Amino acid sequence: MKLRCPICGKTYEKPVQRCECDEPVEFEAFRSEPYIGKNVWERFYDFWPVKPALEFSLGEGDTPLVKSRLGREFGIKLYLKNETVNPTWSFKDRGTFLAMSYALKAGYKAVGTVSTGNMAASVAAYASRFGLKAKIFVSESASEEKLKAVGVYGGDVIRVRGDYGRLYFESLKLGEKLGVHFINSDNPFRIEGYKGIAFEIAEEVSPDYVLIPTSSGGLFRGIAKGFTELHESGLIDDLPTLIAVQAEGCSPICRAFKEGKAKIERFENPKTIAKAIANPYPPSGNAVLKLLREFGWGCVSVSDEEIKEGQRKLAGEGLFVQPASATGIAALEKLDLPEGAKVVSILTGSGLKTLKNTPAGKIRECPLEELENCLR
Amino acid sequence: MKLRCPICGKTYEKPVQRCECDEPVEFEAFRSEPYIGKNVWERFYDFWPVKPALEFSLGEGDTPLVKSRLGREFGIKLYLKNETVNPTWSFKDRGTFLAMSYALKAGYKAVGTVSTGNMAASVAAYASRFGLKAKIFVSESASEEKLKAVGVYGGDVIRVRGDYGRLYFESLKLGEKLGVHFINSDNPFRIEGYKGIAFEIAEEVSPDYVLIPTSSGGLFRGIAKGFTELHESGLIDDLPTLIAVQAEGCSPICRAFKEGKAKIERFENPKTIAKAIANPYPPSGNAVLKLLREFGWGCVSVSDEEIKEGQRKLAGEGLFVQPASATGIAALEKLDLPEGAKVVSILTGSGLKTLKNTPAGKIRECPLEELENCLR
Repeated sequence: MKLRCPICGKTYEKPVQRCECDEPVEFEAFRSEPYIGKNVWERFYDFWPVKPALEFSLGEGDTPLVKSRLGREFGIKLYLKNETVNPTWSFKDRGTFLAMSYALKAGYKAVGTVSTGNMAASVAAYASRFGLKAKIFVSESASEEKLKAVGVYGGDVIRVRGDYGRLYFESLKLGEKLGVHFINSDNPFRIEGYKGIAFEIAEEVSPDYVLIPTSSGGLFRGIAKGFTELHESGLIDDLPTLIAVQAEGCSPICRAFKEGKAKIERFENPKTIAKAIANPYPPSGNAVLKLLREFGWGCVSVSDEEIKEGQRKLAGEGLFVQPASATGIAALEKLDLPEGAKVVSILTGSGLKTLKNTPAGKIRECPLEELENCLR
Repeated sequence: MKLRCPICGKTYEKPVQRCECDEPVEFEAFRSEPYIGKNVWERFYDFWPVKPALEFSLGEGDTPLVKSRLGREFGIKLYLKNETVNPTWSFKDRGTFLAMSYALKAGYKAVGTVSTGNMAASVAAYASRFGLKAKIFVSESASEEKLKAVGVYGGDVIRVRGDYGRLYFESLKLGEKLGVHFINSDNPFRIEGYKGIAFEIAEEVSPDYVLIPTSSGGLFRGIAKGFTELHESGLIDDLPTLIAVQAEGCSPICRAFKEGKAKIERFENPKTIAKAIANPYPPSGNAVLKLLREFGWGCVSVSDEEIKEGQRKLAGEGLFVQPASATGIAALEKLDLPEGAKVVSILTGSGLKTLKNTPAGKIRECPLEELENCLR
């Protein structure tokens, strides 16, 4: 089980959270073939760095790939990977489950994370399920709505005053010292869990493009690694083109990509309705940047107005997503994809998570006596 | 395709919404065997009264059956059927999808429902997906939170002033007159869709007991019909004992059952936190009552305090449900189930749907400089 830094190349024989150069590490590529099995953990059993603790699974993964009519106006075949139907209603559960499987096996009694949204709820939920203590660090600005969806699982929710970016690194350092395994956004086991999204897509279609809402870069790296491993294992003929999608109001990766910079820079004064992808200094930013250039992939940013329109379009197909999950659809307007291209957009989390900021629809009033008129 | 009234026995050759005697109708039992297939619609293809319109499926059904440690204290084997990971995060999607498949085939241009919660969102979502108009009748008292989760899908949301119980019957009558197919709580196609829950459970375990949160009675009837058809088809050896679970503050079925009444009576001044199962005069109440007596099944009611405790216990296993979904777990305290019994409890809908009324967990405060102390 060897880990490698995708930036400086240094290797590690034992699991570490990050490279000495401060960049993330990742497991070396797995090459194998699938089995017959009911869930993605079983079917791709040899592709995981740790044995999935299936007795604690909540049924994460194996989400529907929904054929969408929204591709028609762009002349493409569009599919929506609906990650909102995971156990805590976001893609985070895949990575959380696998990293928690490792934490349990490695003998940790406690796990932690730094998040105010989907990941916090996911880690809190799985910690309860696995019987581990949870330390959930949330930012000062976390809304009551979000904290409720985290606190319900019974973990130790701690609101931290101070720089949120520094908290990411401090938590990893202190966690190792105190025996708390932090499953932050780009924890190497978490990334491995996200590979399942690529595996499941490849079981159903051979996409030409995959649109991935991108914040810390963890999800993007996981999906990229999944497709790469399938390719290197000879299971798919061609790698799809992956597109990182960011919100214009917080797009450090797209900016560095366009400006030809070697490293991302902190995005000052981030402002977007897509809170779930509003990391101004993404810890896997440089690693994503390198992937984009190495494979000739792309990065697109979309405005809040375009995101809202994307959200509205998806709801018009029966899929209510949080703003971050609508960025892929919004990006279609800006990508001039070839006629007939097969495109998958990842719907990362449920719209119920951001209900407070969802505009109320129009409501008509009707007295019961006038029901017939109201129905016409 | 014959329908039959389970109360008076009258049969109908064409789909009707209800029997002339005002009771619900149901399709005669299907007897067949399963196929190999990826989803429940394909595997039990010959058990549906209409061809499922799979091109419009959002991936409803095929939900996880989660093994729970909450059974230990009762000496039973407990499994949780997690319906909160359906496309609109409740079990309603199964019935909505099948009924919508019929509406489309029958040439309806519009569908409707009477609901303020899960079913309203489900029908609005699938109507958009199927390209049909939606008429969603909600009660005067519907909260803004709930209406947002319905309005987002773009249907015609109509708040009706007047008796909500009468609205159920009026909508069916006017709907047929005006060409709007109402998919209310016990629409016969909707009931058929719920059979999938029984089918999927039987694919994994042979339960001795199934605990079913019960309001209108539609879900109970669907699961009962599913198991009965499996039994009559020779696919399972024994019928499980089904237990209808109601909230004490609104338990018209349990009350009539215990008092030996032939018919349910309106439950005056219903009051419970489990709003999703607070129908004071359930349209399938008499049909459920008949099933309970015919098969020697049971009905249990639980208090709001017990429901809250059940919700807390489930969250402690990583499953955040709405109050109605915690009634099954709450009922375990009142049922003296035999040692080693295999029990399935149905988790009907996501806790995110009732976030507003979820108590905020405890939150600690911590300055970044003291992180190490806070972590210890």
